Amino acid sequence: MSHYDYFEAADIPFIRREYPLGDAFMTRFKGMSRDELRALQDARFRKVVAFAWKTPFYQRLWGARGIEPGDIRGLDDITKLPTYSKEDLMASVEAHPPIGDFHGLDTYPADRRPPLIFHTTSGTTGRPQPLLFGPRSREIQNVLLARTYLLQGMRREDVVHSVYGFGMVNGGHYIRESILHWVGAQLLTAGHGAETRSAQQVALMRDFNVNVLVGFGDFLLRLADVARENGIVPGEDIRLRMVTGHLGPEGRAAISKAWAGCDVYDWYGVGDTGLICGEGPERDGLYIAEDAQYLELLHPETGLPTTGDELGDMVCTCLFKDDLFPIIRFNTHDVTHLVDGTSALGIPFRRIVGFRGRSDNMVKLRGINVYPTSIGAILQAERAEFTGEFICELTREGAREEMTVRAELRGTPAPAAQAEIEQLLRARLGVEMQVALCAPGDLAELTGIEKRQKPIRLIDKR
Amino acid sequence: MSHYDYFEAADIPFIRREYPLGDAFMTRFKGMSRDELRALQDARFRKVVAFAWKTPFYQRLWGARGIEPGDIRGLDDITKLPTYSKEDLMASVEAHPPIGDFHGLDTYPADRRPPLIFHTTSGTTGRPQPLLFGPRSREIQNVLLARTYLLQGMRREDVVHSVYGFGMVNGGHYIRESILHWVGAQLLTAGHGAETRSAQQVALMRDFNVNVLVGFGDFLLRLADVARENGIVPGEDIRLRMVTGHLGPEGRAAISKAWAGCDVYDWYGVGDTGLICGEGPERDGLYIAEDAQYLELLHPETGLPTTGDELGDMVCTCLFKDDLFPIIRFNTHDVTHLVDGTSALGIPFRRIVGFRGRSDNMVKLRGINVYPTSIGAILQAERAEFTGEFICELTREGAREEMTVRAELRGTPAPAAQAEIEQLLRARLGVEMQVALCAPGDLAELTGIEKRQKPIRLIDKR
Repeated sequence: MSHYDYFEAADIPFIRREYPLGDAFMTRFKGMSRDELRALQDARFRKVVAFAWKTPFYQRLWGARGIEPGDIRGLDDITKLPTYSKEDLMASVEAHPPIGDFHGLDTYPADRRPPLIFHTTSGTTGRPQPLLFGPRSREIQNVLLARTYLLQGMRREDVVHSVYGFGMVNGGHYIRESILHWVGAQLLTAGHGAETRSAQQVALMRDFNVNVLVGFGDFLLRLADVARENGIVPGEDIRLRMVTGHLGPEGRAAISKAWAGCDVYDWYGVGDTGLICGEGPERDGLYIAEDAQYLELLHPETGLPTTGDELGDMVCTCLFKDDLFPIIRFNTHDVTHLVDGTSALGIPFRRIVGFRGRSDNMVKLRGINVYPTSIGAILQAERAEFTGEFICELTREGAREEMTVRAELRGTPAPAAQAEIEQLLRARLGVEMQVALCAPGDLAELTGIEKRQKPIRLIDKR
Repeated sequence: MSHYDYFEAADIPFIRREYPLGDAFMTRFKGMSRDELRALQDARFRKVVAFAWKTPFYQRLWGARGIEPGDIRGLDDITKLPTYSKEDLMASVEAHPPIGDFHGLDTYPADRRPPLIFHTTSGTTGRPQPLLFGPRSREIQNVLLARTYLLQGMRREDVVHSVYGFGMVNGGHYIRESILHWVGAQLLTAGHGAETRSAQQVALMRDFNVNVLVGFGDFLLRLADVARENGIVPGEDIRLRMVTGHLGPEGRAAISKAWAGCDVYDWYGVGDTGLICGEGPERDGLYIAEDAQYLELLHPETGLPTTGDELGDMVCTCLFKDDLFPIIRFNTHDVTHLVDGTSALGIPFRRIVGFRGRSDNMVKLRGINVYPTSIGAILQAERAEFTGEFICELTREGAREEMTVRAELRGTPAPAAQAEIEQLLRARLGVEMQVALCAPGDLAELTGIEKRQKPIRLIDKR
C-alpha cells in the first residue's frame, strides 16, 4: 500500500509560495493593480472550471443549460454559468448517497486519491449536509483564515480561546488547524457549551491567561455574562486584547463593552468555502480574499449585480479548489453590500460591510421585507439593557401574519419598555410587530445559544 | 514576523524517514535483532536526556537525587533516574502556572519556538492537567497510532467512526490527526455522546456506510445497544469490519458479539505519551512500539522489575520527545505483564497483554488487592446477561471496609442472580463483597459512560 499522506497531497511548499501570509502577504499584494489581480484570478478560475467539468454534478448543472466546455474560457464568461445553493448539493447527496457526486474523488487513481476531510453542517434544518475537503484546498482555507488573524494582530505569543464547536461540525476543526498550522498561537479548544460548560470556559480563560477570544458573536457576548455570574471580572481576571469572530450587525460595540473595551474584528465565510473575507487592522470593511475567492453580489430576486448599498446575495467561486469539490457560483444566501473608497492597506482587494442577514430568512411581513438580524441590530443600538439575545416567531391568524419578537433585557424593565420597543421597530422597519420581554437566559433553550454554532433567530409557525 | 509554521517545525520528511509505517514499517523492522533495536533506542534516549537536562523540571527531579549530566550516558543508566507521575506534573503546574516548567519552550529562540499543541486531560479528579506537544513529536505520535491502525488492517478505503471526545480533551484530536494525516481513511468525528447524541451517532454510521469503529471499549458496547433501541441492526444496517480501541479486560468478546462478530483490536497509550503499544493482525498481545517508547514494568510497591504474569506499573520513556516536554520514566500507574514467546510478525518488539487495571485504583479490601477492572472482566466472562456496565463503591462501617458492586443485567434477573454473583466474586477475588443488580442504562449517570472518555468504575467513600 502506497503512503500518499496528507502532507504530500497538501503540497505545503506550493501553498507557502502561492498563498502567502504575514509579511509575505503584504509584500505580494501591496500596490498590486486590479488588472494584475484579475489575471491571477482568471488563471486560477480556468483550473477550477477544468476540474469541475470532470464531476457529474457540474456536467449535469451546466449541461442542462446547454453549456459546453469551450463556452467558458475565463472569468469573463462566469455569468454564463448558473448559480446554485445548498439545496442542489443536498439533492446530489439524495441522488448519490452518501456523499453526492460533486467531489471529483473518482477522477484520481486509487494510489493518488487524496485523503478526504469529512465533516457535516450542524443540520439547522433537517439532515446535515456533508462537507468535503481535499488536503490542499483545506490548507489553503486554513491559510486564508490565518492570514486574516495575523492581519488583525493575532500573534504567536497569544493565548487564544475558541468556542467553535467540534464533533461532526467543521467549525472548531477549521479554526484549530488554521491557528495551529499557520499562526502558531497557543489555542484552547474549548468548543461550545455542551463540550466545555460555560462556567468552566471562563475559568479556563482566567487560569491560562487567555488574551484572544474567537467564535460566533452571540456566544462571545453570553460568555462575558457567565464570567460575571461566576465572579470573574472581564478586564481584571480575564484581559482580552482582541476578539475576532462572526459578528451579526448587532455585535461589535456590545462585545467590546462586555469584554472591557477590547478590539473586536469581524470575518465571514461559510462551511464549504472557508473564509471569504475579513477585516484588516483598520476595521473599515471586510477585505474579500480575492486571490482565492471570487465574490459576486447578486439581487436575491433578479439575480443581477447589486449596486450601492442595496443588499445582494454573496455568490462565491473558490479559485483554489481544484483538488476536490470545486465551488463555482455557490449562492450562500447571505446578503451584504460593498464598502466605497480605497483600502487603507494599499491592497487591491475590495471590501464588504459584513453579514447583513440571510435572503432565505428574509420574511415578507404584510408585504415588507424584514431580516431578523436587523431587529437585533436595532435593539443593540438603541436599548442599553438589551442582552443581544432575541428570537422572532411568525404566526398566521386568519389572513393576517404576525411577528412576535422575544428579547432579553437586563434588570427590571421600565414599565414603558415594551411599548417603546414596539414603536421603535415599527418606525425603523415600517411594519408592526409584537414584543415580549424576557429575563437574561430565558431564551437560551429556544435559540440554542449554548449548544449551536449559529443560534436560531426565527421560528416560522405559519 | 517570521513564519516558522507547523509543518516546518514538524519536519515531515524526517518523520517519514525515521518512523516508517505501512509496508515500510515491516521492511525496516522485520528480522531486526534486539541488539540493533537497543542501539536505536540508546541513540534516541541520549537526545531526549540531553533535552530534559535543559528543563527546570528534570533539573529539579534529578538534581534532588544528586544525579549529574555525566551520570546518564545511555539506556544502561536509566534505572539511576527516578520515576515520576501525574502528581509531579501537577505540582510543576502549581508552582509554575499555568503550564509548568517541564516543557522546555524557553530553550528556543523566539523565532524558532515551535507552535504549542495544547490540550488538557478530562480532569477526572479535580483540576485538569495541561497536555503539551510539539509539532514533531506530535506527528510522530500520530504515526505510531496510524502504524498500528494499518497493521490491524485499517485502509484508506475505510469509513471510520470515532467516538473519542473533542473540546479541550486531547483524545479526539489525536485520533483525527492520526487518521487524516497518515492513514487517509474517511473519518466521522462524532465525539462523545454530548457532542453527537448516541441515537444520531448510529444514524450517521448507517447513513455514511461506516465499517470501522474506534473509541473506548465501554462506549462502543453501549452504542450497539443504542443502535438496536433505534431499530438499527448491527450486521445488517451497520456492517463493521473492525473495531479498534482501548479495551478493558472485559471488552473484546462482548464488543465483537454486540457488533455482529466483527474483529476487535486493542491498543494502549496515555495522553502525554500517545500510543505505547497495540495489537497486530494476529491479536496475540500488544506490540510495544519500541523504536519510540521504552517501556519498563515495575512492581507498584517495590519499584523493581516484575517477572512472569505478575502485574507491574507501565513506566514509559518516550524516545522521540526531544522537541517539547521530554518524558523519561513516567509512571502511568496502569498495570500489565508481558506476553511470552516470539512474535508472529517477526519484528523485535516485545508484547504485553494489555491494560489490566490501575495500581492507584487498586483497592486493599480487608487485606486483599482488588482491581475494579477485574470485576468487570469476571462478570463479562461468566454472566451472559451482564451489559458490561458496573461501578464499585467503597464504604467503611466502623472498622470494617465494605465494597458494593452495582452491575447492569439485561432482561429480568434470575431470582438467584445476586447471590450467585456475590459467590462468584468471592471465589475469584478471595474477599467478600455486596452486589446490587441494575437495569441497562441505570448506571450511566454514575459512571458517566456517555460523557466521559474513561467511565468511573470506583467511588471511594471511605
